[in-house]
Amino acid sequence: MDVVVIGIGLIGGSFAKDVKKMHPHANIIGVDKNEAHLEEAMSLGIIDGKGSYGSLETADMVYVSIPVNVLVTELPKILDTVGDETVVMDAGSTKRLICESVADHPKRRNFMACHPIAGTEFSGPSAALEGLYAEKTMIICEVEKTAFKLQERALAVFQEMGMRIRYMNPVAHDKHIAYVSHLSHISSFMLGKTVIEKEKNERDIFDMAGSGFESTVRLAKSSPDMWTPIFEQNKDNVVETLEEYIQNLTTFKQLIMDNDFENVHLEMSNTNKIKQILKGIPLTKK
Amino acid sequence: MDVVVIGIGLIGGSFAKDVKKMHPHANIIGVDKNEAHLEEAMSLGIIDGKGSYGSLETADMVYVSIPVNVLVTELPKILDTVGDETVVMDAGSTKRLICESVADHPKRRNFMACHPIAGTEFSGPSAALEGLYAEKTMIICEVEKTAFKLQERALAVFQEMGMRIRYMNPVAHDKHIAYVSHLSHISSFMLGKTVIEKEKNERDIFDMAGSGFESTVRLAKSSPDMWTPIFEQNKDNVVETLEEYIQNLTTFKQLIMDNDFENVHLEMSNTNKIKQILKGIPLTKK
Repeated sequence: MDVVVIGIGLIGGSFAKDVKKMHPHANIIGVDKNEAHLEEAMSLGIIDGKGSYGSLETADMVYVSIPVNVLVTELPKILDTVGDETVVMDAGSTKRLICESVADHPKRRNFMACHPIAGTEFSGPSAALEGLYAEKTMIICEVEKTAFKLQERALAVFQEMGMRIRYMNPVAHDKHIAYVSHLSHISSFMLGKTVIEKEKNERDIFDMAGSGFESTVRLAKSSPDMWTPIFEQNKDNVVETLEEYIQNLTTFKQLIMDNDFENVHLEMSNTNKIKQILKGIPLTKK
Repeated sequence: MDVVVIGIGLIGGSFAKDVKKMHPHANIIGVDKNEAHLEEAMSLGIIDGKGSYGSLETADMVYVSIPVNVLVTELPKILDTVGDETVVMDAGSTKRLICESVADHPKRRNFMACHPIAGTEFSGPSAALEGLYAEKTMIICEVEKTAFKLQERALAVFQEMGMRIRYMNPVAHDKHIAYVSHLSHISSFMLGKTVIEKEKNERDIFDMAGSGFESTVRLAKSSPDMWTPIFEQNKDNVVETLEEYIQNLTTFKQLIMDNDFENVHLEMSNTNKIKQILKGIPLTKK
């Protein structure tokens, strides 16, 4: 199996590691505009060689894991180049604009729109983890637009990786993912900002921080290069979730100011049901 | 060594486990208004027996791990009862009102005001963990008001547990802890609320949630019984942190609405330095 991974960071590198484990004879070629990342991926044994779009025509499978703003411009060029029997999967965290970018492409049937709900707050080939995708959700959009045989090939790999597959339309994907992913990142970044601003002259204060703080600000370590275009592409949904979040925080603050601690308690009790909801979410082992 | 633990949940139970491990011959008595918790602590081997305030007079050490609203009313009664050679340590997440509640008590020298920066989102004796306190920070307030010999006895136990000790005044403690702990809990509860409200009719949506969401809403599983009185006692500081957090979120939202993604990127880059800050925070193994 000839596999090309375009963008050989955390997501692409982890994909390459799993494919190599399951298919030791697969030939995995990395393509990346960052030459240092390619060299690193080579030396880590994540890829078998370095390539270019010239490698795409004969590939069985192409996995595109690059920032979503680059995806919308590169994906049409990638489809221009691939062979008739190549399946191209992306790993973008938004789906509407990406699907639109190739909606009328003559090779649309070679593309499967994917979003693996997997990752860590780290980036680059050295962050790639074998088994990152196991027991995680793979969201696939507009599956009916992908050729049957190519659907099958892509799904077989995701299933070998131990993923659970969910099908959605791109508009619904972008709306819901704003709540369960994009908002978490903003809440975390702004929490980090609030604390750093306040405590910038008091370094010792972080001795007071415990694992609860670490957990809530973990996502504030994430890559701005990856996340800025996600917020841009999903602007309307992100703004809507932020407005609701700010409204809930403002109400909670007002309850405290009004000494209405009965309702402060009630707000928290009502949210405790997140315990049951979270039981279904598999954690990434680090 | 005769030890009494008042409030035998996650924090008190973990303390008891560590003391027992280091001092196998210690006699550890549990006091709790919740009889089921006492029975559970007995059956789990966390305590050697059940007691009452009658057990306090001959105790060498009393550890009080109960909600902070109960602490301010019980602590004076506890000090009324203890012997001259007993050291009483609390584990409250606020410090100003607790210190004030016993400021003029004739046995003030028997008390050491403590806040262990350790915990998980779970509660009750079954949540108690051996080693929970290891490598965590113990904040001690007004240490100069505790008798020398009793300071020594308490510190020896904390050091055996592997804790790092930090001394602060109660007002500074409450101000800074609002940023690095109380705000995290509110941001997490309100994040959970926002998502649950939006997705209440779409259970499948949580299949889309990944470990990032799990991490940011983890604290929303915390006990409202414990946290409501903390927010009440630290109301002014909590409201101030919330105002700054809401302001930062509002500014970020406005940048997105204005398509000013250069500054969206800059805000996140500036906050990435949290990576270095967090390196110093030990995680609780679960």
